Amino acid sequence: MNKGLLIVVSGPSGCGKGTVLAEILKNDNIFYSVSATTRAPRPGEVDGVNYHFLTKEKFEELIGNDGMLEYAEYCGNYYGTPRKPVEDMLTEGKHVILEIEVQGAMKIMEKCPDAVFVFILPPSLKELRRRLNKRGTETEDVIEKRLSEAAGEIKQAYKYNYTVVNGELSEAVDDLKAIIRAEELSAKNYPNYIDEVLENA
Amino acid sequence: MNKGLLIVVSGPSGCGKGTVLAEILKNDNIFYSVSATTRAPRPGEVDGVNYHFLTKEKFEELIGNDGMLEYAEYCGNYYGTPRKPVEDMLTEGKHVILEIEVQGAMKIMEKCPDAVFVFILPPSLKELRRRLNKRGTETEDVIEKRLSEAAGEIKQAYKYNYTVVNGELSEAVDDLKAIIRAEELSAKNYPNYIDEVLENA
Repeated sequence: MNKGLLIVVSGPSGCGKGTVLAEILKNDNIFYSVSATTRAPRPGEVDGVNYHFLTKEKFEELIGNDGMLEYAEYCGNYYGTPRKPVEDMLTEGKHVILEIEVQGAMKIMEKCPDAVFVFILPPSLKELRRRLNKRGTETEDVIEKRLSEAAGEIKQAYKYNYTVVNGELSEAVDDLKAIIRAEELSAKNYPNYIDEVLENA
Repeated sequence: MNKGLLIVVSGPSGCGKGTVLAEILKNDNIFYSVSATTRAPRPGEVDGVNYHFLTKEKFEELIGNDGMLEYAEYCGNYYGTPRKPVEDMLTEGKHVILEIEVQGAMKIMEKCPDAVFVFILPPSLKELRRRLNKRGTETEDVIEKRLSEAAGEIKQAYKYNYTVVNGELSEAVDDLKAIIRAEELSAKNYPNYIDEVLENA
């Protein structure tokens, strides 16, 4: 049985990452890695779906046992990626999508250099500004802050294996599908395809 | 302007490489690298289409000027890949397909480590035998020799970036298309996509 691919996806707020991933996750063999957090669930949030909600003690125990692929503290709460569910899915041959910001992705790059790193780009910073304005949920100040953060993140896109520009949604989805298909054909990921051809003589 | 991709394709005789490539070459931006040879044209062969037919002196001059990406001598004639037409097409942003046997591909790997190396596999050696028998053009002895050569080549498929199994033609074609699309999205090949997003603020 071949292991699945760990696909790490980053991209600035407003780039449409979530919409692209929702399309990709329609594939029966691609699963989403649910993060863990110590913050309290908000109304409507479901344990194991939105987050794995853990106590601080449990989270720190996992950190101590190298049970987190990455984690960070934010506003007094922990957020992180539990290692075991990801590794179990990969072992079962499932592909796992890990949606994460740049700093977390860099930590994953150290621990899992074989993962596939994809950065979703907006067509331009100008278009990103337009999209954030269109949402209408944030003040001008917040939008400026978002844009400056986005520029900082996009500068790190060079470190990723692939960049996908989300201009037309269907094109971005096809791009990500092509990346996953190509990685499935990579001789480095699946050398046993070659063995199988030779064995059946 | 982005440079095109150099796509090096190998695969044993009978794997259906030519049929897969004929489909891929329908894309207006993908071109086939025509080999050069010193052997005489056969009836119907056209200079610049089947081969670039060169004199021995011209071929050796090109070898001397590092004008051949790779070459080999076979039955007293030279065969090789002229460097200039390939580099010109790449500079113009065109993708170039170089169909070549394993030894030539290994030479290209040294000179052009950024090229994309794809090995087309038959579904199995058993199926390859069936296809060679079906052709009916070769004796049993020749088929056995081909199969033993094929097994030797397939063992080197590990050195390629990608392997594509040609079981269903349409699937193999889609695989190769996905590989080309993914390589177009590789941050290593086209880092300026990232610059463009940042510049348009």
